[in-house]
Amino acid sequence: VDSGIVHGPAVAIHGGAGGYREGLGEPIAACLGEVLDRARLMLERGDDAVSVAVYAVSTMESFEFLNAGYGSALCSDGTVEMSASVMRGSDRAAGAVAGVRHAEHPIRAAAGLLDAREVLLIGEAADRHAVSCGVEHRPNEFFVTARQRDRLRSSAGEHGATVGAVCLDLHGALAAATSTGGVRGQPPGRVGDSPLVGAGTWADQNAAVSCTGEGEAFIRTGAAHCAARLVADRASVEIAGAKALEEVAALGASGGLIILNSTGTVAMPFTTQAMPRGTWRAGEQPEVFVDEPNQRPVQGRVGG
Amino acid sequence: VDSGIVHGPAVAIHGGAGGYREGLGEPIAACLGEVLDRARLMLERGDDAVSVAVYAVSTMESFEFLNAGYGSALCSDGTVEMSASVMRGSDRAAGAVAGVRHAEHPIRAAAGLLDAREVLLIGEAADRHAVSCGVEHRPNEFFVTARQRDRLRSSAGEHGATVGAVCLDLHGALAAATSTGGVRGQPPGRVGDSPLVGAGTWADQNAAVSCTGEGEAFIRTGAAHCAARLVADRASVEIAGAKALEEVAALGASGGLIILNSTGTVAMPFTTQAMPRGTWRAGEQPEVFVDEPNQRPVQGRVGG
Repeated sequence: VDSGIVHGPAVAIHGGAGGYREGLGEPIAACLGEVLDRARLMLERGDDAVSVAVYAVSTMESFEFLNAGYGSALCSDGTVEMSASVMRGSDRAAGAVAGVRHAEHPIRAAAGLLDAREVLLIGEAADRHAVSCGVEHRPNEFFVTARQRDRLRSSAGEHGATVGAVCLDLHGALAAATSTGGVRGQPPGRVGDSPLVGAGTWADQNAAVSCTGEGEAFIRTGAAHCAARLVADRASVEIAGAKALEEVAALGASGGLIILNSTGTVAMPFTTQAMPRGTWRAGEQPEVFVDEPNQRPVQGRVGG
Repeated sequence: VDSGIVHGPAVAIHGGAGGYREGLGEPIAACLGEVLDRARLMLERGDDAVSVAVYAVSTMESFEFLNAGYGSALCSDGTVEMSASVMRGSDRAAGAVAGVRHAEHPIRAAAGLLDAREVLLIGEAADRHAVSCGVEHRPNEFFVTARQRDRLRSSAGEHGATVGAVCLDLHGALAAATSTGGVRGQPPGRVGDSPLVGAGTWADQNAAVSCTGEGEAFIRTGAAHCAARLVADRASVEIAGAKALEEVAALGASGGLIILNSTGTVAMPFTTQAMPRGTWRAGEQPEVFVDEPNQRPVQGRVGG
């Protein structure tokens, strides 16, 4: 139960709800650990929540074994389409891109809209905007890994894994960020919850939320907004996160989310086999969890 | 105050929150009146809420003087990009398209996703999907009217006018639908709240909502979902609608919405100069309201 005492700064990150990442537990744990160590340094020196959330997601976008940016899941035609969003809790500013095919870091393109008139840009316009933000423009093949090409050929199921981060900074401000390569084998042009404010991402003065899972169900339940509203109504992050996932489950779908409130309390519930995740809060050591078959989650203190 | 007694079927429609439609009050009132008359017939014979909402929006899409489909506002490059969404309250199924350039009826393309795996398709994929739904494919110039070409050249402001409908059918099911040509002069690729479930459109078992106005603020407040949540928590539609618009106003933005609950009670609040709107419920006559400068809204009983 949350004591109500502010324990910021704090950060939580996820690498997507889905099946076990067999053989990839160690590199994924190492990636999340590095992200948390750096996020901690940034937060301790006073960086703002948006910068840290965008840093965290951007780093996970570059990591081959997570489904965002480089190494994204492939569409049915073998190409990559990416989407991302970020929200700043202090003033509910938001930025999002969908259907990006060239921006090396979709989350940085999204962040470039936080102080713009537009919240959401799609397709070629989003890629052009990314260039104007200084985000590297890559040929679509840049994002395509041999692993994902193999996975597209195979029938193994994995839905809507994404990456995400929620942060509370030294100044008490919250932010949330989410990025994805979508669902393996999805038709080009399909957009899930990750770039949608209220569905995959939400931040206000009470809570920051990043979701992952079967995106359509997160859209149809307004999952991120739903969880944040419950926190605004004084629910704990555990209850708020669980209730949002219950609504998703009522539609026959699964997934997970990370949620952080204004006192620095984190919950990271999921209803899939696995959700690589990690958290750090002031005065504690960073912790990373990677779920393995037939085991309790492998829990490792990292960094520090 | 809502008596709690079910008064369905019922329908409400809007033609977009914005400035006065000088010189267009009569044709707009006539269009809305025709839509209500036909919606009433459909609802009385037992048509389902989705069909009636889609019919209503589709008819307004064809109407030159409302900003959706034919007669849409033009992007900065003089082309038309359209977006639409629909949600079925009984099971929260949703369908949406964004960045459509050729589908004569974006709302029908959106409706074609209600029972699909995907909720949201964008760009060319959305136009291809529309064709597969039997929606007429038009050259982009089809949608461009002389009036909108003139308006793009002028500096008069008008933001995010859209069209929308909410319905309660004889069987007690709710639905909401929204369609738009976006904001005049918007950059191509910009997407507002209209195709976003939770922002511009929402329906569940308690309420159906369609929003219009400065789309970015409706996204950042999750306006449609926000209003529906309040109804689920037993607020009246008046209170729920007003509170959602208050959140939008807190971001410095304006707009309007129509909201209908499961007993057939409607509210149609707006914070702009004008919002053409109309409603009908069982046992009553249809009513259309078109706001005029320096007058109380012109209120006309139509049809019947």
